Amino acid sequence: MLAVTILGNNSAIPAFDRHPTSQIVTLNDQLFLVDCGEGTQMQIARYRIRRSRINHIFISHLHGDHYFGLIGLITSMGLLGRDQDLHLYAPALLRPIIEMQLKVADTTLPFKLHFYALEAGLLVSNHKFEVSCFKVYHRIDCWGFVFKEIRAPRKINPEKAVLLDIPVAFYDELRQGKDFITPEGNEILNEEVTFPNVPGKSYAYSADTLYHESLALHVKGVDLLYHEATYLKDLSERAAKRFHSTTLQAATTALNAGVQKLILGHFSSKYESLTQFEREAKEIFGNTEVALEGVTYKA
Amino acid sequence: MLAVTILGNNSAIPAFDRHPTSQIVTLNDQLFLVDCGEGTQMQIARYRIRRSRINHIFISHLHGDHYFGLIGLITSMGLLGRDQDLHLYAPALLRPIIEMQLKVADTTLPFKLHFYALEAGLLVSNHKFEVSCFKVYHRIDCWGFVFKEIRAPRKINPEKAVLLDIPVAFYDELRQGKDFITPEGNEILNEEVTFPNVPGKSYAYSADTLYHESLALHVKGVDLLYHEATYLKDLSERAAKRFHSTTLQAATTALNAGVQKLILGHFSSKYESLTQFEREAKEIFGNTEVALEGVTYKA
Repeated sequence: MLAVTILGNNSAIPAFDRHPTSQIVTLNDQLFLVDCGEGTQMQIARYRIRRSRINHIFISHLHGDHYFGLIGLITSMGLLGRDQDLHLYAPALLRPIIEMQLKVADTTLPFKLHFYALEAGLLVSNHKFEVSCFKVYHRIDCWGFVFKEIRAPRKINPEKAVLLDIPVAFYDELRQGKDFITPEGNEILNEEVTFPNVPGKSYAYSADTLYHESLALHVKGVDLLYHEATYLKDLSERAAKRFHSTTLQAATTALNAGVQKLILGHFSSKYESLTQFEREAKEIFGNTEVALEGVTYKA
Repeated sequence: MLAVTILGNNSAIPAFDRHPTSQIVTLNDQLFLVDCGEGTQMQIARYRIRRSRINHIFISHLHGDHYFGLIGLITSMGLLGRDQDLHLYAPALLRPIIEMQLKVADTTLPFKLHFYALEAGLLVSNHKFEVSCFKVYHRIDCWGFVFKEIRAPRKINPEKAVLLDIPVAFYDELRQGKDFITPEGNEILNEEVTFPNVPGKSYAYSADTLYHESLALHVKGVDLLYHEATYLKDLSERAAKRFHSTTLQAATTALNAGVQKLILGHFSSKYESLTQFEREAKEIFGNTEVALEGVTYKA
């Protein structure tokens, strides 16, 4: 299961009870926090996210509406006695800021905080997921992320496996496509007890960016794309000037990338209603929704 | 008029929809912001405080629940095009933190931000108000503030002043107690056209502190005292260990200082209900209220 829960869907200045950017990516039993604007820890409480299950945090860039809530969240995790390691993937300059803030407060965290400076390519991977990073086009260094669910290539047919007396200890190898040799030396072909699995789901977060054709390559074919649409289509000049995108540009990237579904977010504080955002994007890309806070969108 | 509006009444971890410390002190036409925990800019919007009228900000110490909202507020003021100077009174180490955060965002504020490092004594004064600072007893350097309204010593009797043909241009001098000489050389005694004015109001914010007898001297005789009461009276050991106060300790300081009224705040996240706080403090100091967010308390 891969899904994203929106904690903040607004751009720089909080408005209309919309919050700065933050979201939780749920990948089976993992929670990833992506960006962490001011108030994120309150939003996490409001939507009853289990913060103890957040072990990886990704910060796209160092504009405040994407990270001012991070130090508060980290500090609160410490006060609540967290002891698991926390992994923070962010622009390199975030580290001295966090460290200085902990130092002046005379705070020693009761858990280990690992910093990883963002660079293009694979950030973290294991047998369950991988997260990679790509550069986007903003006023300062800024990065998008692709989250991929890794599934075993094969799915076990449990009745068949039991019938053939295959020990449970061998199931993981079955899922990887291995054949089984019985104690008597007989071979049971993998295809006899497994089906091909469906591919893992994927989600891309494109951060703050102006429109650029190359972005579609980075998010190519994902099941779910979150793309900023700070402005409606009539403000494409302002969008470009401020290194942001419009509805039509977000939808064009979704179309060119052949994604399954598009979510729009990072709305300018000048807009109270969001209806027009969805309507405009759908002119180009049908399967579009606007990101609403507290709502979970499945890949 | 001197009054305080509570924006956040909770201690470190936000809980039960209570926010970390922040408050607005209104002194006639001036708004002062005192401490600025995470989410303060949202609370300012929620309670319709006119942020453009905030020209002075006071930060008591560098624990996050007292300043993590400051960089967001300052950044938003910039994005909204503020051009008036902003005066920030805070521990010296806040300056490099703010400057580093502005730098990594490539942000140049469109207004001038003046930093003043806190030290005991007078921080700012003019003919309308004065703010002074005193050291309190916390785990790191921490400061309380006393706000005093300055009133002219005399109040004009307008009918009498008109009757005696005193020009309006001279009214300010009348308020200061000066006699008037008519163009004909006759003396009109100040007492003939003025009454003695009532003294200005005063408000003290004692920040985060453990109980110490000397605090009562610093807040002596103020009309309104905001004192932290992180814990109920049964947890006085924990309070001392963490450099905080209990209800009874806050009330004892109020009693010893001979203040008019006490407001309790900075409640630990372990308490959902605040009823017991008021009850306990009233055993010692009758005119006590608990600080509630969005409520204004007059000196």
